[in-house]
Amino acid sequence: MNFQQQLQRKIDTRTKPIGSLGVLERLAFKIGSIQKTLTPELKNPAMIVFAADHGIEREGVSPCPREMTWQMVLNFLRGGAGINVFCKQHGFNLTVVDVGVDYDFAEGLNVAREKIARGTENILHAPAMSIETCLKAMEVGAKYVRMEHERGCNVIGFGEMGIANTSPASLLLHHFTGAPLEICVGPGAGLDAKGVEHKLNILKRAYAKHKVTTPLEALATYGGLEIAAIAGAVLEAKRLGMVIIADGFITSSGFLSAFEIDHSIIDNVIFSHASKEQGHQVMLAHMKGEPVLRLDLRLGEGTGAAIAYPIIQSALVFLNNMASFDEAEVYEVERYRETPENLRS
Amino acid sequence: MNFQQQLQRKIDTRTKPIGSLGVLERLAFKIGSIQKTLTPELKNPAMIVFAADHGIEREGVSPCPREMTWQMVLNFLRGGAGINVFCKQHGFNLTVVDVGVDYDFAEGLNVAREKIARGTENILHAPAMSIETCLKAMEVGAKYVRMEHERGCNVIGFGEMGIANTSPASLLLHHFTGAPLEICVGPGAGLDAKGVEHKLNILKRAYAKHKVTTPLEALATYGGLEIAAIAGAVLEAKRLGMVIIADGFITSSGFLSAFEIDHSIIDNVIFSHASKEQGHQVMLAHMKGEPVLRLDLRLGEGTGAAIAYPIIQSALVFLNNMASFDEAEVYEVERYRETPENLRS
Repeated sequence: MNFQQQLQRKIDTRTKPIGSLGVLERLAFKIGSIQKTLTPELKNPAMIVFAADHGIEREGVSPCPREMTWQMVLNFLRGGAGINVFCKQHGFNLTVVDVGVDYDFAEGLNVAREKIARGTENILHAPAMSIETCLKAMEVGAKYVRMEHERGCNVIGFGEMGIANTSPASLLLHHFTGAPLEICVGPGAGLDAKGVEHKLNILKRAYAKHKVTTPLEALATYGGLEIAAIAGAVLEAKRLGMVIIADGFITSSGFLSAFEIDHSIIDNVIFSHASKEQGHQVMLAHMKGEPVLRLDLRLGEGTGAAIAYPIIQSALVFLNNMASFDEAEVYEVERYRETPENLRS
Repeated sequence: MNFQQQLQRKIDTRTKPIGSLGVLERLAFKIGSIQKTLTPELKNPAMIVFAADHGIEREGVSPCPREMTWQMVLNFLRGGAGINVFCKQHGFNLTVVDVGVDYDFAEGLNVAREKIARGTENILHAPAMSIETCLKAMEVGAKYVRMEHERGCNVIGFGEMGIANTSPASLLLHHFTGAPLEICVGPGAGLDAKGVEHKLNILKRAYAKHKVTTPLEALATYGGLEIAAIAGAVLEAKRLGMVIIADGFITSSGFLSAFEIDHSIIDNVIFSHASKEQGHQVMLAHMKGEPVLRLDLRLGEGTGAAIAYPIIQSALVFLNNMASFDEAEVYEVERYRETPENLRS
């Protein structure tokens, strides 16, 4: 038996009908494969939230004002946001990185200071970033992954904060999958139908404005500083052999960008949930990702990744701690079928 | 504002787009409503697994032999089964109750001894239980709920072990919802297509054999001792104002029986997951239950209820621990819309 067969055999011989733990069995197989062991473990989970502003916000594509980006970062730093409470619930080490917020955070605040610009350019008029800026943002992402890896973390999630960032996410999705913009664009933080129509019109014009060829060019042109940081972080986490937990629509657009740069990242990625934002379903289908949760979440910040964590842990709990049929002296169904007389007596 | 409005207002004013925590928001509302407080808490979670055998097993409706019931109970008592490891993961107090297993457990084993019979009658030939026996089983369920309540438990899940018990579950589902037996019958622990056809034929004959009028008669005639115990447990837990977590197809047939006896139980019930067993979807639709998880689970034992627990906790974590917009000094979207000049300046 090769390793994969051994791993599947271990899953199948736990005291349960074969396949009866559904998604958990596939998660156990995936994490065992990533860590190349029959007894995988998740250690020191980390969440890195990248925050940045977006030039396209000036076009009224979000119901929220740009200022809400820095206000929410302050909320993160004070511990009052969704991502804080879910990280605390599950023991995640949370880092908040300012990679491009249009605000000067006061000294003494516990924000990682990596501001590359005060937000991106307005995609309607210019590429969001130069290639050079995009690479810098990707390197910021990679750097914080390395820091977590060095402290013994082997499972990591990413989150984002950036008012209007469903717009770059929609453009990247449209670009990489070819799905019509009508499907890629949704209400984000809560646009009404008229707002969605306006956003769609703006993004159609923005998309037509640019010509890109490589995935990196696409990420620079249509992306955001926080999305590029996530893409860089994902590539680095893959290189380091970590388990990588994707969140919703926007972080997944960073994952999608990394995927287009290197398809193999997907071997290490767990998709925590299917977001209510319809474009997210398209992303998942494109990357052949199976979501762990379907809770109609659309908060972002990395919250879905944190919320799904105990379910991912359950996959290892069953793999490592359940008895086998032999250990439990319980008849295996197949064995019973083979020799019913013998065992019934 | 009445209490429900206050609770919804608390949910809506946490620092997130309204509705963006999806199912978690509905769970928070439900648990707050059950406990009649804006700061609900889950305390001392308990899982009670009821085990019993089934006369219908003699008709070859399961791929597993009757002996697997007691073997799996021993596995529970040794801590090696799925329900053990997930209960341990989330701090559930696990009790295993023998309400009708066809086996004599050795002295000293930590099984709750409430054997009413050595399994039910074969439904193909006689009612599974008399009304009197059914009521006894229900009282066993109620008794163990009271014990948990007395030690300060306010959230409880139920599980089951009983080879062939998808058969009574299918009959109860068919009886109470009118859904065709073809939809109510599935592969259970792993029947092939031919096996499912055989099971369907047996259950059609069994169903036609009996005439029942009240829900209690139906439970006695088509049910099982563990299913009746669950029905009694659910009714008692509702009476005591507890949060009640349903598991998969078989435990849900106990919930369904309780529901038909008293529709109001549903106010306290959280459906932990949608099972892969197709009949479970029909049950959920009939009781208008929204499942927390969709993981293709079909293990039973209460495992889905235990696995879903941290997600249910997340609903209270956000409700109780997230900051409000006012506390966080973050603009609320609606407020921003009303007075953009004022706030942008």
